[in-house]
Amino acid sequence: MPTMSKSDAVIAVDIGGTKFIVAVVNENGEILSRVYCRTFAEEGPHKVIRRLIISMHNVMEKFTDHNIRGICIAAAGTIDSSRGVVVESPNLMQWRNVKLRGILADEFEIPVYLLNDASAAALGEYKLGNYGSADNLIYLTISTGIGGGIIIGGKLYEGSSGCAGEIGHTIIKADGPMCKCGQQGCLEALASGTAIARYAREKLAKGSRSMLIEMADGNIDNITAETVTKAARKGDALALAVVNTAAGYLGIGLANVINIFNPDVVVVGGGVSKMGEIILKPARASMKRHAFTLPARTVRVVKSRLGADAGVLGAAVYVHQKWRD
Amino acid sequence: MPTMSKSDAVIAVDIGGTKFIVAVVNENGEILSRVYCRTFAEEGPHKVIRRLIISMHNVMEKFTDHNIRGICIAAAGTIDSSRGVVVESPNLMQWRNVKLRGILADEFEIPVYLLNDASAAALGEYKLGNYGSADNLIYLTISTGIGGGIIIGGKLYEGSSGCAGEIGHTIIKADGPMCKCGQQGCLEALASGTAIARYAREKLAKGSRSMLIEMADGNIDNITAETVTKAARKGDALALAVVNTAAGYLGIGLANVINIFNPDVVVVGGGVSKMGEIILKPARASMKRHAFTLPARTVRVVKSRLGADAGVLGAAVYVHQKWRD
Repeated sequence: MPTMSKSDAVIAVDIGGTKFIVAVVNENGEILSRVYCRTFAEEGPHKVIRRLIISMHNVMEKFTDHNIRGICIAAAGTIDSSRGVVVESPNLMQWRNVKLRGILADEFEIPVYLLNDASAAALGEYKLGNYGSADNLIYLTISTGIGGGIIIGGKLYEGSSGCAGEIGHTIIKADGPMCKCGQQGCLEALASGTAIARYAREKLAKGSRSMLIEMADGNIDNITAETVTKAARKGDALALAVVNTAAGYLGIGLANVINIFNPDVVVVGGGVSKMGEIILKPARASMKRHAFTLPARTVRVVKSRLGADAGVLGAAVYVHQKWRD
Repeated sequence: MPTMSKSDAVIAVDIGGTKFIVAVVNENGEILSRVYCRTFAEEGPHKVIRRLIISMHNVMEKFTDHNIRGICIAAAGTIDSSRGVVVESPNLMQWRNVKLRGILADEFEIPVYLLNDASAAALGEYKLGNYGSADNLIYLTISTGIGGGIIIGGKLYEGSSGCAGEIGHTIIKADGPMCKCGQQGCLEALASGTAIARYAREKLAKGSRSMLIEMADGNIDNITAETVTKAARKGDALALAVVNTAAGYLGIGLANVINIFNPDVVVVGGGVSKMGEIILKPARASMKRHAFTLPARTVRVVKSRLGADAGVLGAAVYVHQKWRD
């Protein structure tokens, strides 16, 4: 029987507060396998990591006909990528200075990398999103929170300790509304999915009329950014006003990023980006009002092409790049 | 008579609204000659450029024993460094899309480069400021306005059209005070020398007591950031409160920069930085309150070492680097 040369692949993991994804990705950025697991973050790092390790072993057993070159974990929060440590994470309670890279390297005995999830997604979008000639790319993910990733001169920029890109926690309205990070007036507190739901609740609590009340079964606490999106698509005036408020602040955040980086492209991902032009169009208009003319004219602000796969795809690109270095 | 091999040098120019500097700088970053001229910006670009050319010829005639390798002009405002054009400049009225690089290249027939003045200063500080191992460096110049320059991985980051680094015009207080750029709540409108003087005037107009009134000969319109600095050094309570207000906002601007870039060092230059620790100490404290712990702990926020020479020295470094490429 002739020996076949094995194909290369990597294990890419994206850990969120609700679920984690374990994927096997080849060198062409094709996802060969993708498994979703519940995180149960409330059980603490020890149990979550045990479940993660079991899932990874299960997946790897199915790919013994591949050379698994390495592992990359993308996780939300402050990641010290140079030391491979989850410093803290808003979505992973009780995770403080968890040496995740070391634990997984001991277990699997192949190279392990740890990245912030938005940085990973930025790399994925840059390498696989087909945005044309765009060596300076900023990625923003907008869902319950807002994260950011930075590509400079075609390379992921991680900063001096690997925690660069926290665009969601730049302050754009000093003394503004509280952010869950403890600051006031962060971009996240003004333009995230959480903020969109809050704006809607505030307006309804003041007695404004909207189909949102019925959609939320009469309980405004049920309203999420998704409910607001649906109502906005149906032309609900209150929902559209709420989206415009968030888009206005998103435009200020974009303008700040564009005045600082003068980038080729800003890619907007995350759950809120699924709204598409309903939020992107007014956000671009706000960006143009608040940024300098030259960088505002040359930048493209576009919706993510990789969607929910951006994190694992970027994590995979990261390992393949390290392998080739 | 034996032929001497000529030394290399470059012409480095820093054009401000009040004066311009024409310097001859050697490869070691030593300023061999430095001439100051009044800009008379109000006379418009044509006359300013004529005077600039005459000054440059005068200087070059004294250095015929050197190989002048090139010219670099550092100028305030939106500079399209890739095309060598001054797009617009707050300090150089009537300058709109002035093709300065082309004009000087035709005149002198040696390579000419054009850079934003804060970007030039960032490069100067990085190469000649001796900040130790600091490959990710952000430079902020605070005087009447606030400019910024970015060093990433040891290289000047200019952005896709050469106008990156406008940190002074990032919005940190949406709906805040008017900035001369036309926006509201820019860092410049809240923490520049102009803002410091405005805070003092506002407090005095409300009837607060201070030695500033006497120092300004009874006319509060005479108060500048320099007057406030002098009074703060003498312990004047109002002046100290004013400096603390500006420092608080400067700290927010620093926190944003630190959350985005996770840099090794932030160098603060410009006239206001001459206050030294009076403003830097409360600014650092505010930065630490508003930034994430990890990047705030690893960054150093320091006063410029090159002072007013940062611009011409950085411009000179830029030409020497291009010459070696």
